[in-house]
Amino acid sequence: MCIDLNADLGESFGNWRLGDDTALLTIVTSANVACGFHAGDPTVLRRACAGAAEQGVAIGAQVGYRDLAGFGRRFIDMAPAELTNDVLYQIGALEAMAHAAGERVRYVKPHGALYNAIVRHEEQAAAVAEAVALYDPDLPVLGLPGSVWLDRAEQAGLRTVREAFADRAYTPEGTLVPRREPGAVLHDAEEIARRCLAMVRGEPVAAIDGTPVRIDAESLCVHGDSPGAVEIARTVAERLRGAGVDPAPFTAVGR
Amino acid sequence: MCIDLNADLGESFGNWRLGDDTALLTIVTSANVACGFHAGDPTVLRRACAGAAEQGVAIGAQVGYRDLAGFGRRFIDMAPAELTNDVLYQIGALEAMAHAAGERVRYVKPHGALYNAIVRHEEQAAAVAEAVALYDPDLPVLGLPGSVWLDRAEQAGLRTVREAFADRAYTPEGTLVPRREPGAVLHDAEEIARRCLAMVRGEPVAAIDGTPVRIDAESLCVHGDSPGAVEIARTVAERLRGAGVDPAPFTAVGR
Amino acid sequence: MCIDLNADLGESFGNWRLGDDTALLTIVTSANVACGFHAGDPTVLRRACAGAAEQGVAIGAQVGYRDLAGFGRRFIDMAPAELTNDVLYQIGALEAMAHAAGERVRYVKPHGALYNAIVRHEEQAAAVAEAVALYDPDLPVLGLPGSVWLDRAEQAGLRTVREAFADRAYTPEGTLVPRREPGAVLHDAEEIARRCLAMVRGEPVAAIDGTPVRIDAESLCVHGDSPGAVEIARTVAERLRGAGVDPAPFTAVGR
Amino acid sequence: MCIDLNADLGESFGNWRLGDDTALLTIVTSANVACGFHAGDPTVLRRACAGAAEQGVAIGAQVGYRDLAGFGRRFIDMAPAELTNDVLYQIGALEAMAHAAGERVRYVKPHGALYNAIVRHEEQAAAVAEAVALYDPDLPVLGLPGSVWLDRAEQAGLRTVREAFADRAYTPEGTLVPRREPGAVLHDAEEIARRCLAMVRGEPVAAIDGTPVRIDAESLCVHGDSPGAVEIARTVAERLRGAGVDPAPFTAVGR
Repeated sequence: MCIDLNADLGESFGNWRLGDDTALLTIVTSANVACGFHAGDPTVLRRACAGAAEQGVAIGAQVGYRDLAGFGRRFIDMAPAELTNDVLYQIGALEAMAHAAGERVRYVKPHGALYNAIVRHEEQAAAVAEAVALYDPDLPVLGLPGSVWLDRAEQAGLRTVREAFADRAYTPEGTLVPRREPGAVLHDAEEIARRCLAMVRGEPVAAIDGTPVRIDAESLCVHGDSPGAVEIARTVAERLRGAGVDPAPFTAVGR
Repeated sequence: MCIDLNADLGESFGNWRLGDDTALLTIVTSANVACGFHAGDPTVLRRACAGAAEQGVAIGAQVGYRDLAGFGRRFIDMAPAELTNDVLYQIGALEAMAHAAGERVRYVKPHGALYNAIVRHEEQAAAVAEAVALYDPDLPVLGLPGSVWLDRAEQAGLRTVREAFADRAYTPEGTLVPRREPGAVLHDAEEIARRCLAMVRGEPVAAIDGTPVRIDAESLCVHGDSPGAVEIARTVAERLRGAGVDPAPFTAVGR
Repeated sequence: MCIDLNADLGESFGNWRLGDDTALLTIVTSANVACGFHAGDPTVLRRACAGAAEQGVAIGAQVGYRDLAGFGRRFIDMAPAELTNDVLYQIGALEAMAHAAGERVRYVKPHGALYNAIVRHEEQAAAVAEAVALYDPDLPVLGLPGSVWLDRAEQAGLRTVREAFADRAYTPEGTLVPRREPGAVLHDAEEIARRCLAMVRGEPVAAIDGTPVRIDAESLCVHGDSPGAVEIARTVAERLRGAGVDPAPFTAVGR
Repeated sequence: MCIDLNADLGESFGNWRLGDDTALLTIVTSANVACGFHAGDPTVLRRACAGAAEQGVAIGAQVGYRDLAGFGRRFIDMAPAELTNDVLYQIGALEAMAHAAGERVRYVKPHGALYNAIVRHEEQAAAVAEAVALYDPDLPVLGLPGSVWLDRAEQAGLRTVREAFADRAYTPEGTLVPRREPGAVLHDAEEIARRCLAMVRGEPVAAIDGTPVRIDAESLCVHGDSPGAVEIARTVAERLRGAGVDPAPFTAVGR
């Protein structure tokens, strides 16, 4: 049995460091590498791509709003046609970095406020899907199950890959508990690992109110922006392996 | 007989317009399209690439320093390794735009202060050459005859293409008269056209002091950043055609 | 009888020119000078402030979202506390430019998407008002009559100044007809001038459906981003003068 | 006996943290607060100014090149007139932040590549001096003894303040040993503290080759960009205090 582990990488910028890319690349199987619009400069991206290539980690384009000051975490009400072009530009830029490492961009995952916006925003969701389809209709996309984004991507003929969040609580309906609510983010590494294993095996996990809920996902998103987060990610990977579940890029299948 | 005519395009940004891309694309055969670091946003670049593709104009990556406020016209003393990565990023980004238009990046030409710096700056010249070679060793580069840039590009195994400036005066040694000197820039469209024709035929033109000098070039650089400049470019193209010289992309040969 | 005429200035950036500041400064009495976040670099701002000071035109801080690529015309869903700080920063920066011209910032007017957002967005409206009050509680602010923005500014103790748009159609309720609707923007200079004169005299103008409507304003906003717009502004100023209405900065009173 | 201790603050940007401003503000007496061009966003600057005001630390404008990607550490060959305007803009912006904290900008210190460039670059040195003089001729400036910068600042009528670097080795001539040479940077907190004390007392310290050399300074620059650096700064402050030397802002005198 296999499962993909994805995490955000390449989010440093110039003199500012963020996250521990080196550690993460020994843990995850898919790296959502920033593309320079919300984070990441060309040197940071190239290093991240080279590291991913070396470790056999799949390189994904983590596209975002053009907003370094806001780290792509602020919704921007931009014209869909411009969003398509911004996303195209970012994928191409990262492709050059992957190419210099003997690799290529294997998938696309929107970042931050863009990720959240296109859960429901139809025009922006379609705009991002159009960019990916224009760039390469064989490029899969990662997203939230049930999102408008995955729906529009499917309509655009793209392979869609559903992800679950390792360290987030779910509602009984299987949607994420909003971050601002108590208990929304889990911190116990062993508990998180147990939940991940259950999800992978198709077994229910406890929703925030205790109701058993099934979360169907082809990839698990882990975090790496703090030493604690890296430790959790490592524990998840180890427990999965210990239980006979092999972390492997979702892109390894069918390409 | 054939000659390439190149000009800078895609240099608008957001709400700010610069140059008349539509007019230029009916005149030139190679478009040096900005890549977003000194000018050009993704929407501007995509439109420029689409226009070029439609008109059969070759798309070149006009790479520059990361300096929108200075329009890439200020030397930046950056680390060569970072310059390599900045150039790689820009080529890749433009490639995505060319690709969306059914085309690809056909050559690379540095812009502004970077163009001028690598006439002599060895590390930066080598850094740009390395970026192009990493991206695609078959990609030709455009530059000033006798520059360190073309020398380093050749050492990196790249095809180098020498360009002459249609509207600039030359010294008796065949180098450009610096812009700040009187007579450095020519304004008479017919005179410029006559000089271009002479260069193409391998005949000498008058240097600034009247000495006949031979300027050997595979491409002629024309400008399009003012209505007057577009008119000069149009006259050059018409006079060349009238004399049996066919404007054609230099990239059309040998690829 | 007096009326203020305000227009946007200082919206060029680096090598990109926008608007005819020189012409506008001979027409308007209040200059909404960009502050570098949506447009305007320090050199552009200083020149605009120097010109305004020379012509006796009041300098206003035209604060906007941090979005050069979008020219501040895209709503950004940013945290109110950060918006307060972004606005403070912009006012201070422009103040230095005004100071170098022997002048000071006389009022604040939000730009583009921020202007539109705070017609209704309570948190962002309060955030901008807080910035102005922190900077100088004696600084008046310009805005749309009936907007949440003017309401919050008043609550913050600021003097609020209502403006009308010279070249825009109004609904029978006295609100602006949205730009996308037919007839929303007026183009006939003489008609625009007649309407402006009526507004100044407290007489009704025809709403989009012909209903007479009274628009009460202390300042008239004119545009200068095209040669046609400058001509309209000039006609408005001339007709007002011809009718005995003297264009004068609203800040001239009560300071 | 008194001495000023200065350090760089406010160098975080958006989601990226840099330095420990909170710790440094309990140690130093003058804070060189970034102004948004090489580092620092408005929220970061406001927090730094508020903290400095609270702790009685003098706020200085740490002006730099417009280069977030390079953290202001790359020389930019910009026109002096534009540099003057960029510096003016930055001082004004920070002033607004200081003002919101009930304080004001007390001095100016150039950052990074600009600091280094104007040790010798006459036009840029004069350009920065002109900006400060335009803004407020009573504003003192901090710089390297013997630099063209301090010379031009003096010619512009500004009060100049010489600084020494606590953790840097000096040549027998009293200039800094370039960073790339072995032994250029000192790491032993107690040794650094002893040298600082000697400098303050007017006693010689050992140059890199052992020669005794006198370093005359009114301010000591300490660093805070790593936990180790903060510890060194703290040790310097404690040892000075223990020896009866009171850390106090240089701006406390004569204003």
